[in-house]
Amino acid sequence: MSKDVKGIAASDGIGIAPAYLLIDPDLSYDKDKKVEDTDAEYARVEKAFNDSIDELQKIKENAKGRLGDEELEVFDAHIAILSDPEMLGQIKDDINNNKTSAEAAVDKVTTNFADMLAAMTDNKYMQERAADVKDVAKRAMSHLLGKQLPNIAGIDKPVVIVAKEITPSDTSQMDAKFVKGIVTDLGGRTSHAAIMSRTLRIPAVVGSENITENAQNGQNVIVDGLHGDIIVDPSDDQIKDYQAKADAFEKERAEWAKLVDAPSVSKDGKHFEIAANIGTPDDVDDAMKQGADGVGLFRSEFLYMGSDHMPTEDEQFEAYKKAIVGMKGKPVVVRTLDIGGDKPLDYMPLPDEMNPFLGYRAIRICLDRPEIFKTQLRALIRASEFGPLSIMFPMIGTLAELRQAKKIFAECKDELQKDHPGLGDDIKLGMMIEVPLAAINADKMAAEVDFFSIGTNDLIQYNFAADRGNDAVSYLYQPLNPAFLGLINHVIAAAHRHGTKAAMCGEMAGDELALPLLMGMGLDEYSMSASSILRSRSMMKDLDTKDCAKLSEKAMELDTNEEVADLVKKELNLD
Amino acid sequence: MSKDVKGIAASDGIGIAPAYLLIDPDLSYDKDKKVEDTDAEYARVEKAFNDSIDELQKIKENAKGRLGDEELEVFDAHIAILSDPEMLGQIKDDINNNKTSAEAAVDKVTTNFADMLAAMTDNKYMQERAADVKDVAKRAMSHLLGKQLPNIAGIDKPVVIVAKEITPSDTSQMDAKFVKGIVTDLGGRTSHAAIMSRTLRIPAVVGSENITENAQNGQNVIVDGLHGDIIVDPSDDQIKDYQAKADAFEKERAEWAKLVDAPSVSKDGKHFEIAANIGTPDDVDDAMKQGADGVGLFRSEFLYMGSDHMPTEDEQFEAYKKAIVGMKGKPVVVRTLDIGGDKPLDYMPLPDEMNPFLGYRAIRICLDRPEIFKTQLRALIRASEFGPLSIMFPMIGTLAELRQAKKIFAECKDELQKDHPGLGDDIKLGMMIEVPLAAINADKMAAEVDFFSIGTNDLIQYNFAADRGNDAVSYLYQPLNPAFLGLINHVIAAAHRHGTKAAMCGEMAGDELALPLLMGMGLDEYSMSASSILRSRSMMKDLDTKDCAKLSEKAMELDTNEEVADLVKKELNLD
Repeated sequence: MSKDVKGIAASDGIGIAPAYLLIDPDLSYDKDKKVEDTDAEYARVEKAFNDSIDELQKIKENAKGRLGDEELEVFDAHIAILSDPEMLGQIKDDINNNKTSAEAAVDKVTTNFADMLAAMTDNKYMQERAADVKDVAKRAMSHLLGKQLPNIAGIDKPVVIVAKEITPSDTSQMDAKFVKGIVTDLGGRTSHAAIMSRTLRIPAVVGSENITENAQNGQNVIVDGLHGDIIVDPSDDQIKDYQAKADAFEKERAEWAKLVDAPSVSKDGKHFEIAANIGTPDDVDDAMKQGADGVGLFRSEFLYMGSDHMPTEDEQFEAYKKAIVGMKGKPVVVRTLDIGGDKPLDYMPLPDEMNPFLGYRAIRICLDRPEIFKTQLRALIRASEFGPLSIMFPMIGTLAELRQAKKIFAECKDELQKDHPGLGDDIKLGMMIEVPLAAINADKMAAEVDFFSIGTNDLIQYNFAADRGNDAVSYLYQPLNPAFLGLINHVIAAAHRHGTKAAMCGEMAGDELALPLLMGMGLDEYSMSASSILRSRSMMKDLDTKDCAKLSEKAMELDTNEEVADLVKKELNLD
Repeated sequence: MSKDVKGIAASDGIGIAPAYLLIDPDLSYDKDKKVEDTDAEYARVEKAFNDSIDELQKIKENAKGRLGDEELEVFDAHIAILSDPEMLGQIKDDINNNKTSAEAAVDKVTTNFADMLAAMTDNKYMQERAADVKDVAKRAMSHLLGKQLPNIAGIDKPVVIVAKEITPSDTSQMDAKFVKGIVTDLGGRTSHAAIMSRTLRIPAVVGSENITENAQNGQNVIVDGLHGDIIVDPSDDQIKDYQAKADAFEKERAEWAKLVDAPSVSKDGKHFEIAANIGTPDDVDDAMKQGADGVGLFRSEFLYMGSDHMPTEDEQFEAYKKAIVGMKGKPVVVRTLDIGGDKPLDYMPLPDEMNPFLGYRAIRICLDRPEIFKTQLRALIRASEFGPLSIMFPMIGTLAELRQAKKIFAECKDELQKDHPGLGDDIKLGMMIEVPLAAINADKMAAEVDFFSIGTNDLIQYNFAADRGNDAVSYLYQPLNPAFLGLINHVIAAAHRHGTKAAMCGEMAGDELALPLLMGMGLDEYSMSASSILRSRSMMKDLDTKDCAKLSEKAMELDTNEEVADLVKKELNLD
């Protein structure tokens, strides 16, 4: 009997494959068991440890080429723990002295080791080692109990991954070509799993609440990422049916592919831009392949987060140059550093904060530590001679902040122009609209920048006062709420009153229900995951901007997010 | 030579008294010292422990009557730790075996005990005991080293408290009549120290950054809570000068006192309401004494946070009735439960959240757990027969939430009216305006409530995306920012378009620079600390609403918070 589970459609497409459960097996054991033959019992421990070492070596071998050196070293650290004579000695003593089972001895001794390390609260390195000891213990216990730990790095045939949630560490180990679908209990459209799935073009349904309880390893699973449906153990008819749907979707995708060199234009001939959000210069290739009109958001954080030191001006220059050159004359918008207390850097400790999303982050750090900001701005100005470059500042809330950021930019340009007259004069300066007050104050802000880029993820989170990563308040992620649409409309209109370009780079820019509304409001540029570009361009060519304007007016008069969603679906004949 | 330190004026008035430093003394000791006479050394430990016990007993005696039983029990717990034979035995052994000093032995053994307790990460009780052990160790070390620990509960002559910051636990131990002033390194106008000082009418300057480094115990300190100035070790002339200012301020306060029964009316005869924010029914006395026109915000949290169980309908009914009866026919506005992940209740565990201010809190909890909400609403409806009552919902973001809250209220009323026809029909229903989207959507919201109450603390925090408790972003607390004033003006105008009353209950309502602007926008009700009511009423009677309207129009056209502050100061001839 098939089981249907409903979730949030997070990445387009349909996938069908056996389930691969990314959840730990039950590792409980009989705590009261006593053994007679202590030598045999200790031999079980040795075998489990050796099997664990073999397994880790295989995983490491398998992951080479996909993982960086630092990530591979974790496996060596785990192997070293499994070879620690001190730990093995204590386990042996415990079995001999107390006649405990191998499971109990391993559990007790590894727990003691981990607690001891974890108690060194001043030493972050030792605390991380505590986590390693726990990981290793889990692996050894699984061998003792004859259970199989999930091993995402070892997947080598088609699967649908079934997980509570997916972490960036899972993603880094995963060989995407075997992953035909992803389904999770937790998360929403802006969770890591959702964004990653769209980037890798893997069909995904997230936030299903209980799919991990409803699927077993090896059972067939259908993931319908278009509608948010999951079917576990489908009938042959269902498989046939969905295979047909998947083929139709692939056919549609093939149609979209024909638009790769086409302009982004509405039915009535109005031109827009559809750009790509990218995370590293390497993403430029995919953006070009997907026909991006430019890069609307280049997150510069990777330079800082993927490094063990503050990236130098030259390192940054090379990265920006690579992206600009790779886009072959198409415009590139780089967002300046956007980190905060929730993702601190080892070489730049930030204070622990009770509410990091409302804390010391992004432009607030840059204005407070201009030496960091200037290094980035100088690198950008130097890179600008290789193609059209725009720079935008994140988290601007007040005019005073905007003016200070522009002043620091001007200082950097003046310094560099001493040797290179005119360098950076073509750079366009813009700001993210993501702090509510900046959106409200859009008229005054627009007078002082070349462009806005509306960051809808943060703008929604702050306007609804709801953390977008918190499932308990995920019902407040309402991009189509009429009052929120009114705010977006206000921002776009204010931009246009001042001849300022209005762009959007949040999730909403790639949302098919939002597209006609945003076109109706006259949004100029839509920046999204590269994987959504062609679908959006295809939708756009069938939409008339005058109809869209009427539709958006009507939507803003409604009361709720759901009413707007229903209105747009009806208008577009969706579902 | 006197030293001048500048901070944030947090509570009106001028205080002059010797400094009392609420900071720990240096408890470092010679770690390499070895002792010969180990018996004598252990005798030092015994004496230090006994002296500590004596001291704690005195503090406890002193605090009786001011502290509750639960708070007094902490002293007993500390005394019990100091009498623990196991701990004393280990200290003795350490001295005997290793010839260590008493200081080193106490430090080592207590640290081990505390770490062991703290390592029990699953056991909150044990972790709290770890904190107790550390407190006790500090006290014993102070006796060994002949240093004096600060003892806020023991203050029995006039002082100015000098601290990094003041915690609610400090406040609970403090005998306010001896505290002539409070000065702190940290915090802003909405910090605990600031709010508490205003409530207790103690002059205070907070956020001075370094007052604790600039004042010594016993040095005279002048606190000018009107201007944010602190003078350490003033000259005789300065003391005379400030004594005169203090007298003038007291004279002014006496003038204000004459307005206790006067209406809240502008120079041109327009009537307003100035109400009190209160935390418990007992605060009603003070509100009446200060001439409040009503209670504009009764925070109902005390009922939940001061209890060891979910307060019953009857317990709540009694509290609301007491407040309503105490206000003798003046209106009382009760805000429904406003708690969240940052202040969890023992009997209602809430999830740990990365950003509790953007999390599961206030009305979001109440709509999710209607049984809790209904208990409170039923108690309120029953209490409404004793006087004019209004109920307001906190953290409403969307129309859907507002409608759901009103629906649950209607259900409760219907149930109660089966036995008591008409009960609760006179209750006015309102909502806080504190979520940005609700402010933007004020027109639609106003059509569905009897009144708004603008909660400026949260509204500012969310609109600027800046945690009001985070010093690193405190520069973004900008109530006078022109764009923010524009939003307030929009909310008030929207309310009036629908015949809805516009009130304000955040810090800003009692701010003297904000008052003329808010009067200019036509805000109907100003709810504030009872201590600010008479000053506001006095200011109000000298202000013409037509002048105020021009002033607020002018302010909204400016660019920055500072420009508006300067404009208002000039207009009012302040400073």
